[in-house]
Amino acid sequence: MYNFQFKNPTKILFGKGQIANLPKELSKDQKILLLYGGGSIKKNGVYTQVMQALSDYDITEFGGIEANPRYETCLKAIELIKQKKLTFILAVGGGSVIDATKFIAAGAEMSEDPWKIITEGLPVKKALPIGSVLTLSATGSEMNSFAVITKEATQEKLSFGSAKVYPQFSILDPETTFSLPKRQIANGIVDAFSHVMEQYMTYPVNAPLQDRFAEGILLTLIEEGPKTLANPEDYDSRANMMWACTMALNGLIGVGVPQDWATHGIGHELTALFEIDHARTLAVVMPGLLTHKSEQKKEKLLQYASRIWNLNEGNDEERIQNAIKRTVEFFESLEVKTKLADYDVRPEAISEIANRLDKRLGNVGLGEHRDIKKQDITKILEHAL
Amino acid sequence: MYNFQFKNPTKILFGKGQIANLPKELSKDQKILLLYGGGSIKKNGVYTQVMQALSDYDITEFGGIEANPRYETCLKAIELIKQKKLTFILAVGGGSVIDATKFIAAGAEMSEDPWKIITEGLPVKKALPIGSVLTLSATGSEMNSFAVITKEATQEKLSFGSAKVYPQFSILDPETTFSLPKRQIANGIVDAFSHVMEQYMTYPVNAPLQDRFAEGILLTLIEEGPKTLANPEDYDSRANMMWACTMALNGLIGVGVPQDWATHGIGHELTALFEIDHARTLAVVMPGLLTHKSEQKKEKLLQYASRIWNLNEGNDEERIQNAIKRTVEFFESLEVKTKLADYDVRPEAISEIANRLDKRLGNVGLGEHRDIKKQDITKILEHAL
Repeated sequence: MYNFQFKNPTKILFGKGQIANLPKELSKDQKILLLYGGGSIKKNGVYTQVMQALSDYDITEFGGIEANPRYETCLKAIELIKQKKLTFILAVGGGSVIDATKFIAAGAEMSEDPWKIITEGLPVKKALPIGSVLTLSATGSEMNSFAVITKEATQEKLSFGSAKVYPQFSILDPETTFSLPKRQIANGIVDAFSHVMEQYMTYPVNAPLQDRFAEGILLTLIEEGPKTLANPEDYDSRANMMWACTMALNGLIGVGVPQDWATHGIGHELTALFEIDHARTLAVVMPGLLTHKSEQKKEKLLQYASRIWNLNEGNDEERIQNAIKRTVEFFESLEVKTKLADYDVRPEAISEIANRLDKRLGNVGLGEHRDIKKQDITKILEHAL
Repeated sequence: MYNFQFKNPTKILFGKGQIANLPKELSKDQKILLLYGGGSIKKNGVYTQVMQALSDYDITEFGGIEANPRYETCLKAIELIKQKKLTFILAVGGGSVIDATKFIAAGAEMSEDPWKIITEGLPVKKALPIGSVLTLSATGSEMNSFAVITKEATQEKLSFGSAKVYPQFSILDPETTFSLPKRQIANGIVDAFSHVMEQYMTYPVNAPLQDRFAEGILLTLIEEGPKTLANPEDYDSRANMMWACTMALNGLIGVGVPQDWATHGIGHELTALFEIDHARTLAVVMPGLLTHKSEQKKEKLLQYASRIWNLNEGNDEERIQNAIKRTVEFFESLEVKTKLADYDVRPEAISEIANRLDKRLGNVGLGEHRDIKKQDITKILEHAL
């Protein structure tokens, strides 16, 4: 196991009716910006629950955060905060709204262009305190310090992280997610599955507990995912899926082990260029990555084959191929397609993606060995033809 | 899954050489009480590492915290803190030193007798900030808000918990534990094993992720425990055991599930009356508890039999009996004895223990159903004859 440091200060309030506890988490003098997305919270009762809980508070609303939150939209929220001297941001939504909240919280305390946090690595020295009411499980943003922001003007989708933007609290009530479209639930399962794989599917460093935690989340997603899609209002399976998604990316399973975020790296380009749902890009990229890097990832792929898919027959190569096949079948069973053609991306686009990403990466490639460059990206995507 | 709230703000610094990072965790103006136990840290190099890292700090030492930390000793440390106006307590030791640190941190900010926190449930309104350098893995105290204190005068061993006494940081360097006696390492493995069982071995509430995390820790302890006992300086196995012990009781695996702390409850009496090592009392009590409550715990015992001990043959009763047998064999393989006679406790002591505990418990029994009372305690201990 490698040396590591770990701290995650976010308080989780999990379960039915937890929105009513909002006032216990917020001091009375907070001037709150209520940030949300396309307005579904006004249809599914979440907005009403939040407003009832916060009836004694000074609240300003800002809606319209996009599915891949735009830098340009965040700037408007920052302006509003500065103008009205707001002191706390409450995100009510999914990962996109929470990601935007983190960027806005940091930007509200800066005089410079906050995009510099992302592109120039400007440190986040201060950020407004934030909290969240999660209404869509997927990204883990409710219990981590990361955010992904898209700049419309340049079609860039990029991430940043800072300990200053951990939510102080996050409320996870599975019932708030009952009315979500199946497509979004399926996306969440695939996104979380990918988060686990990116912290697990590398090479062994003798960290059996981290491996077992990762495998525990994968198995939970595989078992509970189809159940919650089939019965959206089955509280238990939705709750189990929700907790698994949070644990998939709150830092815990990644301590002391190598990580490979190539799937997200390549996937972000597909979203930036073609507006494909984030999770669907991961389902397109991951099988190709596992195939292309099967030699480097051999030991962990065999462990994955055995512990996740119970594949203990046949030679190593067969077991690995079958494990990748089972992964693809799992995604497809959730109606998440895994081929570029499924999203109308033509083969010629592959070189554009590879060129764009390679240019941005410079000398440091993707993957746990930092060796995934233009040619590899091309090959990985060709597996999705 | 039950509703839950979870927050654990402790920062973990894990791995070789992390003691050198102490100054990054402490502001320069802290007046530090360095709390330790019997002085082994002055023999194994840990004291030297800590003092070198803190050469620029104002440090007062207080040694002599006992294996089951005494209330009476803690009072002396509280006096010293008040007299010298110390502002931070750094625990350097195992669970006992860290537990004492928590009690002292709370007591130093009170005008009343701090024993009232334990016996009268007086809330901890304020506590001095604390940190730890862990030198013995077992209790998980380095990443939780609980402490167990023994009052010499009344032979009482009792616990308290408060969010105010989470360590701000804990340094876990496996190398600092290489020189420990095998007996203490074995005790740590059994203590952590018991912590997991007490959050896992109850009844199912459809919380598969918590189950798998718990099982992941149990399997890690079973696999890595014997390795680290056989090769005390094998860094990886010691590191894996250390991380497993911390994760066993930092709150995570217990979220949203019923818990049964009867083993610890009964075990504490054995320590208070007969000075038996804490972990060894758990090894004495747990098999009897599992046997006596095998009907109530049937479903989880069968899951445990299958997933932990790979016992899938035979009828339910046989599988449960075998799982308990394997548990006992595991403890014994670590040279942790499981019978009262092994510790020179005579059969007549059982009724004394049952009476004492029953009297303290009043109307509320032990266990996940709060139904373990005098007669049950007697039966559980009779299994250890």
